[in-house]
Amino acid sequence: DAANLPLTDLDKLKHENHSFKEELERAKKMIEKQQKKMEQVISKIRMLEDQLANEEGTSNALREEIMMKENNIQQLRFAMRELSARNQELIEKNLILQETIGHSESKPQLPEM
Amino acid sequence: DAANLPLTDLDKLKHENHSFKEELERAKKMIEKQQKKMEQVISKIRMLEDQLANEEGTSNALREEIMMKENNIQQLRFAMRELSARNQELIEKNLILQETIGHSESKPQLPEM
Repeated sequence: DAANLPLTDLDKLKHENHSFKEELERAKKMIEKQQKKMEQVISKIRMLEDQLANEEGTSNALREEIMMKENNIQQLRFAMRELSARNQELIEKNLILQETIGHSESKPQLPEM
Repeated sequence: DAANLPLTDLDKLKHENHSFKEELERAKKMIEKQQKKMEQVISKIRMLEDQLANEEGTSNALREEIMMKENNIQQLRFAMRELSARNQELIEKNLILQETIGHSESKPQLPEM
């Protein structure tokens, strides 16, 4: 009868209520757990961004060093070419001088006084 | 009286129930929102890890290039020293030859036949 109905609804509602409370507790724990994980992950992102910036700085420094070494190489090559050319001139002068001496020595000379 | 009490409890429970349902809905939406954000953030981490690996690869390649250029520089310097030494010898030979010619030309010679 009518007096009984509200009691059954009351029990149902009490059970439903209890379920909701428990589900809500679990949901809040889940939210908290996700927030902690999010903090860790964001912290990892900052760390990776720092490492990336460092590594890019390193690459740039290495590129500058390469440019300096390349300049050095070009200077050395230029100096080598100059030195080789000078060498070549000296070799040719030497040959000429040797030929000149050859001619002189083939000419008869008066004995030294 | 006793017939009224359960009714009031019923209303209270209905209200509480309704509140819990709404709070639970909000909590579920929050959880879903956090999960989506987590996916984006994890995706960003993968991207940063890839960029970092690439940049480290680049740095290593640059270091190798530096080593090769340094070897090249050492070879060029060695060759320069050798060439300079050769140069020096030629200059000295040259001087000796010129002095020899100087002596020859100071000696009187018989006229050519």
